[in-house]
Amino acid sequence: MRFVQFVEQGQADAKPRFGVQVSDGGDIVDVTATDKTIPATTLDVLRGGDAVIERVRAAVESKANVIKAADAVIKAPIYDCEKVICIGMNYVDHCTEQNLPVPKEPLVFSKFASSIADPGADIIKAPVVEKLDFEVELAVVIGKEAHRVKAAEAMEYVAGYTVAHDVSARDWQLEKNGGQWLIGKTFDTFAPIGPAIVTRDDLADPHNLGIRCRVNGETMQDSNTNQLVFKTETIIEWITQFVTLKPGDIILTGTPPGVGCFRKPPVWLKDGDVVEVEIDSIGCISNTVREK
Amino acid sequence: MRFVQFVEQGQADAKPRFGVQVSDGGDIVDVTATDKTIPATTLDVLRGGDAVIERVRAAVESKANVIKAADAVIKAPIYDCEKVICIGMNYVDHCTEQNLPVPKEPLVFSKFASSIADPGADIIKAPVVEKLDFEVELAVVIGKEAHRVKAAEAMEYVAGYTVAHDVSARDWQLEKNGGQWLIGKTFDTFAPIGPAIVTRDDLADPHNLGIRCRVNGETMQDSNTNQLVFKTETIIEWITQFVTLKPGDIILTGTPPGVGCFRKPPVWLKDGDVVEVEIDSIGCISNTVREK
Repeated sequence: MRFVQFVEQGQADAKPRFGVQVSDGGDIVDVTATDKTIPATTLDVLRGGDAVIERVRAAVESKANVIKAADAVIKAPIYDCEKVICIGMNYVDHCTEQNLPVPKEPLVFSKFASSIADPGADIIKAPVVEKLDFEVELAVVIGKEAHRVKAAEAMEYVAGYTVAHDVSARDWQLEKNGGQWLIGKTFDTFAPIGPAIVTRDDLADPHNLGIRCRVNGETMQDSNTNQLVFKTETIIEWITQFVTLKPGDIILTGTPPGVGCFRKPPVWLKDGDVVEVEIDSIGCISNTVREK
Repeated sequence: MRFVQFVEQGQADAKPRFGVQVSDGGDIVDVTATDKTIPATTLDVLRGGDAVIERVRAAVESKANVIKAADAVIKAPIYDCEKVICIGMNYVDHCTEQNLPVPKEPLVFSKFASSIADPGADIIKAPVVEKLDFEVELAVVIGKEAHRVKAAEAMEYVAGYTVAHDVSARDWQLEKNGGQWLIGKTFDTFAPIGPAIVTRDDLADPHNLGIRCRVNGETMQDSNTNQLVFKTETIIEWITQFVTLKPGDIILTGTPPGVGCFRKPPVWLKDGDVVEVEIDSIGCISNTVREK
């Protein structure tokens, strides 16, 4: 299934609600209209566990309450999760690009959930940001509470996958704040995600998907998730040694080569730039940079 | 007012609910029993804004539904906030201790809200942690959404203050994870807070309070919040350049000297150690380290 959050056209101020998209860019089954016991947000659907997911599946199969794609606006597929965890230096080819060794252990940092932005929303370049950069990433969405989980069982804790844009202010990430990356990664709107969370059973192999980023139509990143150094199972084993993962938590798994800061000369995003991030079988989201 | 969350004695499995403590260690006015429109959690009370705070005040003044201190168990005064922000190197005397210059800008890092622990709860020393350290801190609790706020207006956005224990695994903070502090700061239970959020109007001067940490009864940190390099107003101005603060967000303002890692020889917390963190006019919380 493709879990989305959406509002109907002409209801821009409505609270986005949970639905299931029949295909990438396709119509949306308004499952909460069919079954009023299904929660209104993806976060609460995931917190409901398998029992709720089964009700969602039944509502989809009933084929009732279908909203035409053209009549809906897709929003971020989840908001307000407890954690947005990020893995750094996690593509073999991204390490090669920097002449750095492939890390032996995952490097973990984070964003605040307040940085989540909708597909189509502006990426705000705040006045204090000079070196704004793009990063396409495969994001894992957690489906069950996970504490000290072994890699062999880790996939049982995954709800699905979405596309994330790990927007980064390189000046704040790398040159300021005493070497701590947090600020450079977590400005408001620095985590566009979407268009859907594709459930685990609907992705043949999350670790063999084309992954791309385009800026103003020009391809800047073009790789495959088979280049991931640490894959979902290892990342979940690693993180759950430290913290308990909860339903709805998101893990951004790192970015492939081609980001702006390693280009010669460097490429920085500016007002009006349109950034598309795309992963095969999941979809593509587009956001425009706005200085404000 | 002193905002707390509590359960009644003998109801250990009940959901902690919001109340107002009449004094440090004193009885609790069960305001949600007096006025059913008052939300059950501190987070929702703060999200309700001034209108809800006024209802809380009226319920306290009615003096109805008072629970004896001995009949209640105090829990963390807030859970599930969107952000737990921390400021590093923020005491003049803590910088002196390390022979480091006083920073020119606040250094910002974070914990996940999942690290919040109750007063009296165990601090879990996970098997992967070797160098477990203590840090007493004054924590600011945000009361209103704050975006690009100037220092002169910043106090209007503060709901109150509480005591925080910024438990730190120095091996993970300083020696591993590629220099990113997050993991070392955010293990489950690494943020005991409490006993109460003292509202801004009830603290004469948050920047002139004795602040102490004891381990097994021995004083290890003993300073005053007048040693803070960056005070509440400056910290809020700084952070809100980057991210929008929301009601319930917590900012840990840094720790004074005396932490274990700078002692000669270093002092690391071990199973059974009891750590008390205390700030004058707010209170004291005590947590026991458990290897598990």
